[in-house]
Amino acid sequence: MKKLSSNELAQRVLRCDRYAGARLISLLEDGNEDARHTLKLLYPHTGKSMIVGITGSTGTGKSTLIDHLIHRFRKSGKKVGVVLVDPSSPFSGGAFLGDRLRIQRHTCDDGVFIRSMASRGHLGGLVRTTAETIRIMEAMGAEAILLETVGTGQDEVEVIQAVQTCILVISPNMGDEIQALKAGLMEIGHIYVINKSDLEGSTQALREIEAVLSMKDHTDDAWKPKVVSTVASEGKGIEELVSAINEHHAYMNQSERIEGIRFQRAEYELGLVFKNELERLVLQELKRKGKKKKFIREICDGQTDPYTVVDEVLKNFLKKETPE
Amino acid sequence: MKKLSSNELAQRVLRCDRYAGARLISLLEDGNEDARHTLKLLYPHTGKSMIVGITGSTGTGKSTLIDHLIHRFRKSGKKVGVVLVDPSSPFSGGAFLGDRLRIQRHTCDDGVFIRSMASRGHLGGLVRTTAETIRIMEAMGAEAILLETVGTGQDEVEVIQAVQTCILVISPNMGDEIQALKAGLMEIGHIYVINKSDLEGSTQALREIEAVLSMKDHTDDAWKPKVVSTVASEGKGIEELVSAINEHHAYMNQSERIEGIRFQRAEYELGLVFKNELERLVLQELKRKGKKKKFIREICDGQTDPYTVVDEVLKNFLKKETPE
Repeated sequence: MKKLSSNELAQRVLRCDRYAGARLISLLEDGNEDARHTLKLLYPHTGKSMIVGITGSTGTGKSTLIDHLIHRFRKSGKKVGVVLVDPSSPFSGGAFLGDRLRIQRHTCDDGVFIRSMASRGHLGGLVRTTAETIRIMEAMGAEAILLETVGTGQDEVEVIQAVQTCILVISPNMGDEIQALKAGLMEIGHIYVINKSDLEGSTQALREIEAVLSMKDHTDDAWKPKVVSTVASEGKGIEELVSAINEHHAYMNQSERIEGIRFQRAEYELGLVFKNELERLVLQELKRKGKKKKFIREICDGQTDPYTVVDEVLKNFLKKETPE
Repeated sequence: MKKLSSNELAQRVLRCDRYAGARLISLLEDGNEDARHTLKLLYPHTGKSMIVGITGSTGTGKSTLIDHLIHRFRKSGKKVGVVLVDPSSPFSGGAFLGDRLRIQRHTCDDGVFIRSMASRGHLGGLVRTTAETIRIMEAMGAEAILLETVGTGQDEVEVIQAVQTCILVISPNMGDEIQALKAGLMEIGHIYVINKSDLEGSTQALREIEAVLSMKDHTDDAWKPKVVSTVASEGKGIEELVSAINEHHAYMNQSERIEGIRFQRAEYELGLVFKNELERLVLQELKRKGKKKKFIREICDGQTDPYTVVDEVLKNFLKKETPE
């Protein structure tokens, strides 16, 4: 693709050009300045999509469930975005992609946009680019966006901030999971899926989860988390899962709850953009003057420490008083 | 403990007072300003310890291995620090602590300092406080520090920057692990431990890992990763593991390599302190003026976007030109 201006790239994304979308995401991952401007142009066209998070350990069958959900959403005429977050692959750029082949076959469908996010080895990078990728998919017209995460790292706790409906996938043969749920992880799910429910122990798992959920106090208008049993490999229980998603979506939209989620998402993104810009500006500044290496040497030699260095640099960098 | 001055607290930490150490870590986690000053005082007394990272999935037996390593280091007269990084527990403040009970029993020993780091729900927090906790343990006189991580999230890739010797623990019954190693995760380990080597598949796992390692080009003076088979629950192979650690430690110290690691660690910590300070200053400022909520509302209403807000705020906050 030849070099496009920020405006041209934005126009193409809004016309649902998948190559333009993919290109913009790559530019953002590389910290490209023009790409940031393109995002500004897209921003007003975003914020209306249904965003569903699917979280669960490797081996619980998330990918197969997502495969089914893509089908269902497509059948009801919706464009679908899929964001696969894979922070386990900082070294290789995609270690566990094998079981995602099932999802990748949808790339032939013009109404499906898929992106795997691997962390780029820099703090906050994965979280920011994931949030931006969701915005880009919204700008491309995806009415439903599925965000898959493995769900244990801090990064992943961050990325699900944008999600409206959170699905937790559990497999009955993973005892640790049930224990984790008991210990409090439970709180993030709106829908709990016991996948591979043909396996031994699934009734027990179902009973345990329902017991934990029933212990929680529920005010009258609060969402009561649903538990759905599925065998994704055979397509069983998908109907019930889709109903549960739609039900939660309706619940969210019938009240001001969706506004709360949108506020939270904007707050979260504002924080990300802030941190990213600050980091970029300061580190750039340090590097430009060749001071960074000198400071680090002095820290190593015990002449100073990081706290003193930062205090000194910031004194020169920040205005003493910010104007009103 | 009554309120101590920064100086008093630093003196107590240097006298190896474990309660003072624990208190300082908690203060840092809470973002306390005085604690930052205490760290400045401690910094010159740090940087000499042996820091060993132990990384592996839940269920590979890391805790049992660490239990054995603590014993060995104690027997050779070393004080030991243990930092357990558990980003899986942002919700509960410690979901998987069950299998750490084995380690916790060492808390009766005055020469062992143990700290579990759970993420505090704010980006970069876990990474910074883990780095600071290692420094504090060094200041307390820990000659060997063991850093346990689950090893998949971005945070954990960050925290092992401080580590001199990196041990990767694999269990033969975890097929995914071996696949991940093949895909590139391999590169971070100096020592590979196949724990539970009495299980079926362990010879196969050993062969596969050695095959991957042998494919790598090695210059004459480069460290050749070691592979050690253990059955930690029975204490088998621990001798070999300790030898491998000591061998790598000697290798690191016989050359300028340790200087390289120290430079990298200082660079990494400088970056963390920078980001943390900037974030604190700017977000504090935004909050103080009550502007944050107003900005977020405007973003939600589509009147502006995070990028524009950040550009405006920073324009007022940063000096246009930093003086030489």
